[in-house]
Amino acid sequence: MKFIVIGGDAAGMSAASRAKRHNPDMEIIVLEMTQDVSYSACGMPYNIADTGRDIDDLVVRKAKVFREKQNIDLRLGHMVTKIDPVKKEVSGTDKDQNEFALPYDALLIATGASPKMLDVPGTHYPGVHVLKSLSDGRKIKSYLRENQVKRVVIAGMGYIGLEMCESLRKLDLQVDMVKPGDAFIPWTHPELSGAVQEEVENHGVNLHMGQNITEIQKDGERLIIQCTGMDLPCEMLLVAIGITPNSRLAKEAGLSLGPEDAIAVDKSMETSCDGIWSAGDCADAFHVVTGKKVWIPLALRANRGGWAVADNVSGKRTELPGVAGTAVFKVFDMEVARTGLTEKEAMEAGFSPASVAVTTRSKAHAHPGNQPVHLYMIGDRKTGRLLGAQMVGKDGVAHRINAAAVALHAGMTVEGFAQSDLAYAPPFGPVWDPLLTCANQLIKEL
Amino acid sequence: MKFIVIGGDAAGMSAASRAKRHNPDMEIIVLEMTQDVSYSACGMPYNIADTGRDIDDLVVRKAKVFREKQNIDLRLGHMVTKIDPVKKEVSGTDKDQNEFALPYDALLIATGASPKMLDVPGTHYPGVHVLKSLSDGRKIKSYLRENQVKRVVIAGMGYIGLEMCESLRKLDLQVDMVKPGDAFIPWTHPELSGAVQEEVENHGVNLHMGQNITEIQKDGERLIIQCTGMDLPCEMLLVAIGITPNSRLAKEAGLSLGPEDAIAVDKSMETSCDGIWSAGDCADAFHVVTGKKVWIPLALRANRGGWAVADNVSGKRTELPGVAGTAVFKVFDMEVARTGLTEKEAMEAGFSPASVAVTTRSKAHAHPGNQPVHLYMIGDRKTGRLLGAQMVGKDGVAHRINAAAVALHAGMTVEGFAQSDLAYAPPFGPVWDPLLTCANQLIKEL
Repeated sequence: MKFIVIGGDAAGMSAASRAKRHNPDMEIIVLEMTQDVSYSACGMPYNIADTGRDIDDLVVRKAKVFREKQNIDLRLGHMVTKIDPVKKEVSGTDKDQNEFALPYDALLIATGASPKMLDVPGTHYPGVHVLKSLSDGRKIKSYLRENQVKRVVIAGMGYIGLEMCESLRKLDLQVDMVKPGDAFIPWTHPELSGAVQEEVENHGVNLHMGQNITEIQKDGERLIIQCTGMDLPCEMLLVAIGITPNSRLAKEAGLSLGPEDAIAVDKSMETSCDGIWSAGDCADAFHVVTGKKVWIPLALRANRGGWAVADNVSGKRTELPGVAGTAVFKVFDMEVARTGLTEKEAMEAGFSPASVAVTTRSKAHAHPGNQPVHLYMIGDRKTGRLLGAQMVGKDGVAHRINAAAVALHAGMTVEGFAQSDLAYAPPFGPVWDPLLTCANQLIKEL
Repeated sequence: MKFIVIGGDAAGMSAASRAKRHNPDMEIIVLEMTQDVSYSACGMPYNIADTGRDIDDLVVRKAKVFREKQNIDLRLGHMVTKIDPVKKEVSGTDKDQNEFALPYDALLIATGASPKMLDVPGTHYPGVHVLKSLSDGRKIKSYLRENQVKRVVIAGMGYIGLEMCESLRKLDLQVDMVKPGDAFIPWTHPELSGAVQEEVENHGVNLHMGQNITEIQKDGERLIIQCTGMDLPCEMLLVAIGITPNSRLAKEAGLSLGPEDAIAVDKSMETSCDGIWSAGDCADAFHVVTGKKVWIPLALRANRGGWAVADNVSGKRTELPGVAGTAVFKVFDMEVARTGLTEKEAMEAGFSPASVAVTTRSKAHAHPGNQPVHLYMIGDRKTGRLLGAQMVGKDGVAHRINAAAVALHAGMTVEGFAQSDLAYAPPFGPVWDPLLTCANQLIKEL
């Protein structure tokens, strides 16, 4: 049994490691085009803010360990350029530009995703960065170290942009953020979005909504970011306008693609072609609320998907129910979390959504350190089902969202969820947990 | 419609307020034997530690507000001594020792629970305290203020004892804790119990397990707590050895009692007698995991039970599924949380429990501020069901437990729970949330 894995980050290395644990005799080859494997990509914004730490601290397990301790044939600098599903062969070029061709019995495509680039003149200038791979992080960190950077413009106000604005402010840089849309966080309720916006602006970040970047110009040592209505001079531009799945190889091999051209997989993570699997940021998933396909590339799913592939290629049939779209990020002291559908997504999926936004507090009455907790919850009028929840606050938001996530997996109604026996002690919340208060309000709307 | 409520704390006032909102014309009389209503009892340990705050800060809503704003006939100092279910009448004495008798259409018994007292000579001495009512808290606070207290002995190592040991250490007092049993926290795994014990001892609290208190002696200004194997001199003894439901009135009226002599109620919170309801610390509940009756007196259930009674007496039929036994407390920097059954309870309930204890961490690889998270999880070999979870740690334990609590309500299997899409970001946890890591380990044991 020869198991080939394309891509050596979360999904790829999880799969390779677990398959080897299941079956030490399996021949496993991992083909990674960069020199980096198995690192905590999500930790990069925090590491970049910390000049005392090396970016390579984020490496979870070194290539050497995979090779020598785990007996995985890990080949760095190997770029796969073609998959032939008929011959069951992958081919490409190695780090010395020599061509290779390898037959496989089972193949995992774990090629990840790539950051989107602005489609404007000037993106080739030094000082224009993206942040997806460890190599990107390394470049940003050395660029900041080696240049007189005082002002950074960030294109985009998603997770990465917001996490990075905090890091850059910690480094005492001026930060301007730019996006075309008018809403700061368009997927949530204005009350929640407003609380986050206030936190970001209170930390001196300049937000420019409704601004398209039209051109990047170079003016001596500095860049001029030309926007629809203004010019922003800076020494560095971080483009964080989203990512796109690396599905070209799969597409050229004739595999089916799913939403946003992610590689379509079934619940066992197998693609439309027998014996070819996909996991990680390049693959799609079923949404547990809608039952429909979505592309929500996040770290836990990548690891879980890698494991499932390892189980399946090892003969241990495993199916994954899917994702709830649970996500959290921190920006300055604000925690922003979501799970399930937004109201718009619920509508598009054919539900009849009702929703409420409420503000409660993070601790018991009269307990010191109380912080507002803003919640937004969506339910279905027809079935009473809980469809989604979103939370924003400085205290106890990140872990609280998980209770709602589990309820989505279980297909609970809002009424059922509102009856949950959640923990209470004064330092950790009011008697009625914010999620229960919000659910109780939502019941009235259903 | 005349609705009489005996007891004016969480359950009683929640019921009265909600019934009045449902039906402003309902005649509602609340009979409270003390002078206090609607206060945050669970906040007392924190308030006692804070000499700058008055204990009455814990009052959530004043009697005046209930009377004047909500039009509830709240009668303080009214002690009910008899319920006559045939005549549908309650009788007793008011604050001036005048007798009263009141007819009712619907009755709520929300008499709460009382702290247990040691059955040894000397419990009558000043300096011997319990902590359950606001009045108890007031007495402790003034006793500490007015006496030269340097050493406190706490009998019992439950929630209240542990929360109070922190408060008393914050006041710079010497604290000795005594209990008869050998295990520090008997209901959890030694690894979790040990982590909490270490935290408590690191804060200078002296723990004496396996010690019975045999007598309290007075020696001038100080008390001598005589134990099986030693004497502990102190200026104050806090007895925190548990509570017992105030069900005497109900019993004398012929109502059925449940576990530990709590008042037996059905899912609508009605007792064995039509038209008499019970809620709060005096009433029992169904356990959502076993389906059997339990007595787990906690604040959320008291409030929720009060609401359910209000709904039912107002003609809005409401049933409560029951409790999962979710609880959390903090002692110094350690958060201790549980939900569902312990392994012993699972065995007694007829399950075939398997369990694992694991130690993971609270943040992502290489993220600063990582703390160990100790978990213990119990599942059923026969059905694969999740039966209970317990967690101990200094970071992110209190809210994490709620994800497992919801899974218990939904009757999820360990495998199903392990597939939950939980939130991930480096400041808040590893990619695999500690609960998922523990569930993945437990699957191997099932």
